[in-house]
Amino acid sequence: MADIIRPTFIIDKNICLRNIERMVQKAKNNNLKFRPHFKTHQSAVIGNWFRDFGVHSITVSSVQMAEYFAANGWTDITIAFPLNILEMDNINRLAANIHLNLALENKQAAEVLSKKLNAPVGVFIKVDKGYNRTGIVTSKTSKLDAILEILSSNKSITFKGFITHNGLTYSARSTNEIFSRHFDALLKLKTLKNKYKPVYPNTEVSIGDTPSCTICNNFNGVDEIRPGNFVFFDLMQQNLGVCTFDDIAVRLVCPVVAKHPSRNEVVIYGGAIHLSKDSLQNIDGKDFYGRIAINRKGEKKLLSERNYVTRLSQEHGILKVSQKHFDNFNLGDLVEIIPIHSCLTANLARKYLTTEGEEIKTINS
Amino acid sequence: MADIIRPTFIIDKNICLRNIERMVQKAKNNNLKFRPHFKTHQSAVIGNWFRDFGVHSITVSSVQMAEYFAANGWTDITIAFPLNILEMDNINRLAANIHLNLALENKQAAEVLSKKLNAPVGVFIKVDKGYNRTGIVTSKTSKLDAILEILSSNKSITFKGFITHNGLTYSARSTNEIFSRHFDALLKLKTLKNKYKPVYPNTEVSIGDTPSCTICNNFNGVDEIRPGNFVFFDLMQQNLGVCTFDDIAVRLVCPVVAKHPSRNEVVIYGGAIHLSKDSLQNIDGKDFYGRIAINRKGEKKLLSERNYVTRLSQEHGILKVSQKHFDNFNLGDLVEIIPIHSCLTANLARKYLTTEGEEIKTINS
Repeated sequence: MADIIRPTFIIDKNICLRNIERMVQKAKNNNLKFRPHFKTHQSAVIGNWFRDFGVHSITVSSVQMAEYFAANGWTDITIAFPLNILEMDNINRLAANIHLNLALENKQAAEVLSKKLNAPVGVFIKVDKGYNRTGIVTSKTSKLDAILEILSSNKSITFKGFITHNGLTYSARSTNEIFSRHFDALLKLKTLKNKYKPVYPNTEVSIGDTPSCTICNNFNGVDEIRPGNFVFFDLMQQNLGVCTFDDIAVRLVCPVVAKHPSRNEVVIYGGAIHLSKDSLQNIDGKDFYGRIAINRKGEKKLLSERNYVTRLSQEHGILKVSQKHFDNFNLGDLVEIIPIHSCLTANLARKYLTTEGEEIKTINS
Repeated sequence: MADIIRPTFIIDKNICLRNIERMVQKAKNNNLKFRPHFKTHQSAVIGNWFRDFGVHSITVSSVQMAEYFAANGWTDITIAFPLNILEMDNINRLAANIHLNLALENKQAAEVLSKKLNAPVGVFIKVDKGYNRTGIVTSKTSKLDAILEILSSNKSITFKGFITHNGLTYSARSTNEIFSRHFDALLKLKTLKNKYKPVYPNTEVSIGDTPSCTICNNFNGVDEIRPGNFVFFDLMQQNLGVCTFDDIAVRLVCPVVAKHPSRNEVVIYGGAIHLSKDSLQNIDGKDFYGRIAINRKGEKKLLSERNYVTRLSQEHGILKVSQKHFDNFNLGDLVEIIPIHSCLTANLARKYLTTEGEEIKTINS
């Protein structure tokens, strides 16, 4: 830490390992396949931390990310993003070398895949549980049937089942609402699975959101979970009641470069190109971009919600600080910002540093 | 364009060159030094485009960026960011090799600089014209005097003058408001300059925002301009009335991966890690993340404001499309997204591509 002079993405490896172990255990206890989403960390090194817990199957969100992890020894990868038909050459190359699963939700995509695929892949059909991002609404079985019909024309394609991301849990206003939205998804997915089981006995259901995978304990009808964010967690998850502050493994460490006592503001070197512009609403109704932890007499101290990142420019972060804490900030101090959305903050870092001083490379290094 | 298969940051070089030429001419016509801010493009190649117009002095927003451009042959660089006292070693190395200007606004920073600096630098004092990000309020001359006193103790320091970023022009609701906020800044800066001229006859005033530098024609008392965004422009500037759509030199080109007729939505491969989460408010009151241009029969067509990027996930972009245009989007099509804030979108790209097919490296390559 003492050597840090610029905004630096720090990982507490012990917290990460604990987060991984818990989710591995959760999957085991519920008889679920565990295929963690690696889009959060995008790092081969952190991938190896999962491997040490017996994880061998992963999820990614782009062909590019699949290529990166395949090059780093991962041989069982699901790309949980609608098939991009422009990348068929890359997909064929990958499929020739690893066990690759794709996701799609569209007849035309299924047609292109059936026509151009020349190596074996598994295919999940994306279903939409109400989040309205991607996927086919579970009741539209005629659409599902049409896609299945097209996929059956290429013998390299194995239909794997249904994949969904229940993003609705991210906008829940309470943990009870997460439970109910998750339960709602379970019912629909189970109905769907039961409908297709007679013809496709190996039909699997794969779900992915960190909130439900972390706090729910009913996975009736689910075969596989694909959470990603849990490895780091962040303020968004803490705010949802999905994790505590102690579960958040990452910080952006930033130098203090200016102070403005007249408005209780502290300026840090650390802006939108380091934190991302994802925000949450604070208790005062204002959008904010991160919470603040400081070192006081050798102890780390998380400041109350009256202290937060209030504005971001490209390289500047402006901290709103309570009167009580203002004098605890000095020029050249390193403050820790807890990110709103660790996936985006991690993506902006070229590399990470562990609290033990290990430098960690990523897909962006 | 035909070879693009993934989200790609495209630059129309001719528009860039026109934008550069206009600003060079603007500076010349108003007898202003021109020190463009390179934080927008962060690219040595694009830096060379400026050089061809006789530009030899530049602005950057971090020591790291100064190091990158110094390594690429730039010898006159201002770091327009409050001095980060943790980077004094890097600053000393830079100052030994190039003509370096620093900015500061704080007594403690001035003290550290005076004590640790061992090579010649110019120093600007940051003043705040009401934007409340960084800088000393222009009326607080006792603070300015105290800093000047400290700076005078190190003979390697040359006081250059006052630097400001009038960020208020970015929140103007009309071009008239940009004019009036700019004029307001001119008055205060001129008063300040006149006060210090008797003792510091070379006192300069340096201003930086793209809106006023682009549309204002009164620069009374100003010595130098440091705009950056104008090289690319973006929707934020177009929305302010500072540029037209034809002046925006950049696009994020993205493949279409899914379509949802029931809600007139199109899904593209291109999300928050490509565009950034900067948003504007649309005419329907909703936040949006970009406008859309498509190719129709070989012609580029900018769609109306009823078509826009409505949501972003890490890799997904969701387009809200009017009924009229929905059928113009097909799987595998490449659509062009005009970014809200080109600085952040450019920063997320590892490299750029010109419309002529030239690959352009950046500090992030």
